[in-house]
Amino acid sequence: MQRLKMGMVGGGEGSFIGAVHRRAAALDGEIELVAGALSSTPEKALRSGRALGLPEGRNYASWEEMLEGELALPEEERIDFVSIVTPNHMHFPVARAFVRAGFDVICDKPLVHTSEQALELVRAVEKAGTIFCVTYNYTGYPMVRQARHMVRSGMLGELRKVIVEYSQGWLVRRLEDEDKQARWRTDPSLAGAAGAIGDIGSHAENLVATVTGLRISEICADLTTFVEGRRLDDDGNLLVRYEGGAKGVMISSQISTGEENNLSLRVYGTEGALQWRQEEPNHLLFAPFGKPVQTLRRGNPYLCEEARAASRLPAGHPEAFIEAFANLYLEAAAAMRARRGLSPERPPDFPTVYDGARGVHFIERVVESSRSEKKWLDA
Amino acid sequence: MQRLKMGMVGGGEGSFIGAVHRRAAALDGEIELVAGALSSTPEKALRSGRALGLPEGRNYASWEEMLEGELALPEEERIDFVSIVTPNHMHFPVARAFVRAGFDVICDKPLVHTSEQALELVRAVEKAGTIFCVTYNYTGYPMVRQARHMVRSGMLGELRKVIVEYSQGWLVRRLEDEDKQARWRTDPSLAGAAGAIGDIGSHAENLVATVTGLRISEICADLTTFVEGRRLDDDGNLLVRYEGGAKGVMISSQISTGEENNLSLRVYGTEGALQWRQEEPNHLLFAPFGKPVQTLRRGNPYLCEEARAASRLPAGHPEAFIEAFANLYLEAAAAMRARRGLSPERPPDFPTVYDGARGVHFIERVVESSRSEKKWLDA
Amino acid sequence: MQRLKMGMVGGGEGSFIGAVHRRAAALDGEIELVAGALSSTPEKALRSGRALGLPEGRNYASWEEMLEGELALPEEERIDFVSIVTPNHMHFPVARAFVRAGFDVICDKPLVHTSEQALELVRAVEKAGTIFCVTYNYTGYPMVRQARHMVRSGMLGELRKVIVEYSQGWLVRRLEDEDKQARWRTDPSLAGAAGAIGDIGSHAENLVATVTGLRISEICADLTTFVEGRRLDDDGNLLVRYEGGAKGVMISSQISTGEENNLSLRVYGTEGALQWRQEEPNHLLFAPFGKPVQTLRRGNPYLCEEARAASRLPAGHPEAFIEAFANLYLEAAAAMRARRGLSPERPPDFPTVYDGARGVHFIERVVESSRSEKKWLDA
Amino acid sequence: MQRLKMGMVGGGEGSFIGAVHRRAAALDGEIELVAGALSSTPEKALRSGRALGLPEGRNYASWEEMLEGELALPEEERIDFVSIVTPNHMHFPVARAFVRAGFDVICDKPLVHTSEQALELVRAVEKAGTIFCVTYNYTGYPMVRQARHMVRSGMLGELRKVIVEYSQGWLVRRLEDEDKQARWRTDPSLAGAAGAIGDIGSHAENLVATVTGLRISEICADLTTFVEGRRLDDDGNLLVRYEGGAKGVMISSQISTGEENNLSLRVYGTEGALQWRQEEPNHLLFAPFGKPVQTLRRGNPYLCEEARAASRLPAGHPEAFIEAFANLYLEAAAAMRARRGLSPERPPDFPTVYDGARGVHFIERVVESSRSEKKWLDA
Repeated sequence: MQRLKMGMVGGGEGSFIGAVHRRAAALDGEIELVAGALSSTPEKALRSGRALGLPEGRNYASWEEMLEGELALPEEERIDFVSIVTPNHMHFPVARAFVRAGFDVICDKPLVHTSEQALELVRAVEKAGTIFCVTYNYTGYPMVRQARHMVRSGMLGELRKVIVEYSQGWLVRRLEDEDKQARWRTDPSLAGAAGAIGDIGSHAENLVATVTGLRISEICADLTTFVEGRRLDDDGNLLVRYEGGAKGVMISSQISTGEENNLSLRVYGTEGALQWRQEEPNHLLFAPFGKPVQTLRRGNPYLCEEARAASRLPAGHPEAFIEAFANLYLEAAAAMRARRGLSPERPPDFPTVYDGARGVHFIERVVESSRSEKKWLDA
Repeated sequence: MQRLKMGMVGGGEGSFIGAVHRRAAALDGEIELVAGALSSTPEKALRSGRALGLPEGRNYASWEEMLEGELALPEEERIDFVSIVTPNHMHFPVARAFVRAGFDVICDKPLVHTSEQALELVRAVEKAGTIFCVTYNYTGYPMVRQARHMVRSGMLGELRKVIVEYSQGWLVRRLEDEDKQARWRTDPSLAGAAGAIGDIGSHAENLVATVTGLRISEICADLTTFVEGRRLDDDGNLLVRYEGGAKGVMISSQISTGEENNLSLRVYGTEGALQWRQEEPNHLLFAPFGKPVQTLRRGNPYLCEEARAASRLPAGHPEAFIEAFANLYLEAAAAMRARRGLSPERPPDFPTVYDGARGVHFIERVVESSRSEKKWLDA
Repeated sequence: MQRLKMGMVGGGEGSFIGAVHRRAAALDGEIELVAGALSSTPEKALRSGRALGLPEGRNYASWEEMLEGELALPEEERIDFVSIVTPNHMHFPVARAFVRAGFDVICDKPLVHTSEQALELVRAVEKAGTIFCVTYNYTGYPMVRQARHMVRSGMLGELRKVIVEYSQGWLVRRLEDEDKQARWRTDPSLAGAAGAIGDIGSHAENLVATVTGLRISEICADLTTFVEGRRLDDDGNLLVRYEGGAKGVMISSQISTGEENNLSLRVYGTEGALQWRQEEPNHLLFAPFGKPVQTLRRGNPYLCEEARAASRLPAGHPEAFIEAFANLYLEAAAAMRARRGLSPERPPDFPTVYDGARGVHFIERVVESSRSEKKWLDA
Repeated sequence: MQRLKMGMVGGGEGSFIGAVHRRAAALDGEIELVAGALSSTPEKALRSGRALGLPEGRNYASWEEMLEGELALPEEERIDFVSIVTPNHMHFPVARAFVRAGFDVICDKPLVHTSEQALELVRAVEKAGTIFCVTYNYTGYPMVRQARHMVRSGMLGELRKVIVEYSQGWLVRRLEDEDKQARWRTDPSLAGAAGAIGDIGSHAENLVATVTGLRISEICADLTTFVEGRRLDDDGNLLVRYEGGAKGVMISSQISTGEENNLSLRVYGTEGALQWRQEEPNHLLFAPFGKPVQTLRRGNPYLCEEARAASRLPAGHPEAFIEAFANLYLEAAAAMRARRGLSPERPPDFPTVYDGARGVHFIERVVESSRSEKKWLDA
């Protein structure tokens, strides 16, 4: 199998998510990093690229140079896709430019800052006909796919209630001055109009949408900035109403002391319920009405095909965050191969630009709801 | 030690909570059941009393007869207190009558149907100077007392967020026609203006208030009746704002498939966080900021005095629901003895008529908020 | 229902297990404590009885006086049974005397010190035809009864492996000089020939026998005394072979730092496996071959009849140690009533004198195996 | 950083562990697979290599050709090391040949079939001065390194008891005829003299040795073959005595229904205890004497340096099996670089040929003990 050639924008020195993307891309041996513009500071970009062993000619000082440089190469040598792992504010210009130039894109979330940008990007992707994957990475977990399968196949009956939470504690205190991640993620010009709800709340929204297929109809939000001087929300609680009548709660926090990366989902239906926790991702609880709760564990033959396909190791040999991330890369890579006629077509099983756009819209509505005196805002 | 003499109103055949109260009262050998009017149906009352071995002359056909009969006895033979375990609508008349007659009272929750009734009862208790305990039984757990101690002694710093939940699944389907408990608990004339939020949501409110000392300032509620034909709410989600700036979420549900009696509390402060789950009540999680999470377990010498005093068995020999319930009886009994000069005075460590009144007010406000278009209602 | 009249030998001031027995007996309102000889020190016996409110004339200074005194009463006033909760060395003389006098007996474990004593007691019980219950209390847990049911009904297929463990940490350090419990439990003249293996290992043996019906055929034991100066084993590891070919491991320890009362059982068969832990006794894990693990929880309608009958509260309202203990009292009381013709006969569902005798034999063989150079000793 | 060049022997079609090694090697971008002899069947070897995209000239039909072919290349183009992932019987000839030729080696476990082979290999490595890593992969987990640190730094006091278990259920039934893994792992000519105890018991031994530093002094083993017709043990229980007086139990099973890959370790000392479970590898329980149990979680600043260094992601973003495996590759790669003078010397933090040899010896002694009538065998 010919490896796909990846370029990367962002993800240089001090980046957290850049290394995650690189490991996710490398894990299965189907993708090769061949080019990069790893920082918005040219000097840092070049230094980061050298540290990673990027070939000299394709270690670019800026994403503009990279776009130009790659387009100048013979088509078969060019990168197949670009992975965008910059702070949020750069997603839009970089993604738009690469899409317009016909490159496939894997882009971190939240997609862009505004719905207007999102719409423009959606149109660009539609026009270009390229592959566009947004790394709502938690949907890559095998047991999330199992959960989705169980909801879709009716094992929960009619859905009534969804409790989703994404609680962290890393911003309990003011870290803005000492920590790069904290700095940009609490700066509206880099992170966008929202803090916790943008950074992690949007993962929660995407997880619910992916697993249940439910779409939010109304929102009632209460965002708070607990840490003095912080410029964006660091905590949020939402009442949510879904189309079709289900209801629920959504919690997003970065000031919940002691929490690490507690993304948890519970879905209650008339015939059964599911519970999944990202921090122990290898199992899924299923409570069929009136019967003992079952613990479904990754790697077992009793799981659905999508869950088994998303798994690399036998049961009991735990998989985790990077494998889930890598599943998005694998699925996007399969779609890219299909687009090139190298493998059969199949529906995308990764979050697309539409998911990304919906996430941006969600963030906007939550921020507006939180500022509103009105109880319910249409979503 | 002279046993206190208990009379019971309600709790006859088919009652769930009556037997709980009797076991809680019997557990420590300090209280003796000597009289009862165990049902509103005279025949059933008498049959139930005989089954329990009540002495013939004190097995009353009605609570009115019991009040009269006991008052006719020499003072030293009378019951010391009455335990009221009827459906909710009878709490008010029975409690008021016994208080007025000078008896101490242990009454199930929610206290009464309306704030007006609650106020009247509070005044009656104040006038009579009697002991009045409302069985918000979950506060009797040793690890709840430990949690309260830790919050009060500042181990959590300033409180920021409280997530409390009381989720059950027993009303997922329509049980009203076949189950006595379901029938009266969904009948507004017997249960009051609220269903789940009254029956279990008020426990959640009380648990938060007991552990944290926080008082609710504003409420935003969304109550739902999911099961067709049901006359009261069977699910509710609340955004809550507390005096002093803490915020939180409160969840109350009886249609959460697979949930049994999931009362769970999480409290996040600037210096630490706590987590407790009623279904595994013998431990409490404590996350001090920046340090490993600790699992505090009942029965250990490192616990606070109140937690140790509320415990009967060594660590690892689990205690549970009935012991917690019995702790309220023990504490109320101690207060009754103190009132009679049989033991030293001490501040009540059980939910009083004031807690009961606050609970009634809470239920009223939640119901009103749920009906309101206004986002925030003063609590 | 007429309450059964209980006398108690032992269990006075400073006793741990005496109060447990009293609470277990009181819990369900079917038994009344009417007499006692609560200590081997007459003065302490009387003081303890007064503290418990025993009637003056039946608060005896010694068990001999109690036996004599009760026999002197009219038959219908006498105690129905005696509960023996002394240190181990007194079980034999007291139990034998009361059995011979025709009283039913509930006796703590281990039954007696030697197999000879056990045999004599068995014969005495057979001759008297009385009820004799040995409080291997852990078998009273509803989920242990569920486990037994599942094994017996073939849900595990052929049993292959049993891992049982009873680990505590309370004797990590030398407590003999400061703690009454530690003192007598490490004194061979009071506790018998074994320490941990006698005190708690015999519970493990009984739990396996109860749940699986397996009988040990061969033992290979390694007992250790880790704490300097201690006179009995405080730790033991055993390889076990069962009749029929199953094998296993048995662990018993009181020096396992951090362990509280960790009695855990795992049973593996060709068709399924079970796991139960005493510290979280309300659930039982069941792993059917090739299918998701199920968590069976107490209080649910899907449980077997014996498990449901042994339960007092709905699911999610946890029961624990005292309820399990009380189940033995309830079952023994039912057998006593049946013996008196007050209720229908039924097979005893509590550990009998035969279980007690088998436990004594087990302890003896373990001690001998540990001293032996021979690998396998017949059990 | 220049990538190290890896060759692989074994690991072609149908291999489980080959893909694990390749992912582990790829994860961090420091190692590149450039050559392979992926099967003992030449045709299959070549087909497997092509599927992986091995360069044509270095896709060898046999390991002998690979050795010859690589030696024929200019030194700077040759593979730096070979990864041996064949069935066990091939470890010895392949490893010996590559060591003698001066290549560094990463070899799967158990190292070889006999102590004689092990000794020969140890001598070859000593003579060649090459790096030799045996993939006892579980020692690569960050929390295992934390556990080791805590034991070594005295936080547990004097060690008294070790309970280690490696329980699987995948061989509950006869799979030998249908499953490649089952076939060779139960064939003495391919797997060696032991089944479960060789395949997974040796992991347990290594985990104990790594974490505690304890060396076994005496063994008492009971191995069993439960499945009819199986040629090697599928279950084993061991009593173990360690140098210095600690004792313990070691359990190894592949017929424990419902178990997946349950490698669990508990270490009890006079001052504290530790517990770790491979299936939930991101946390470690620490019970300091007399204090609450702590849950130490990967990725936190309170961990020791080795644990932090072995971690790639922030707390709450779980890592798992492949990362632990990759840690051995990283450590071995660092040692290889140091040997080439490309980085500073440092002591190896990976299982070496000595660990491998000790493991072989352990397996031999267990098998002998199991056959012996003698209770204790020197280890």
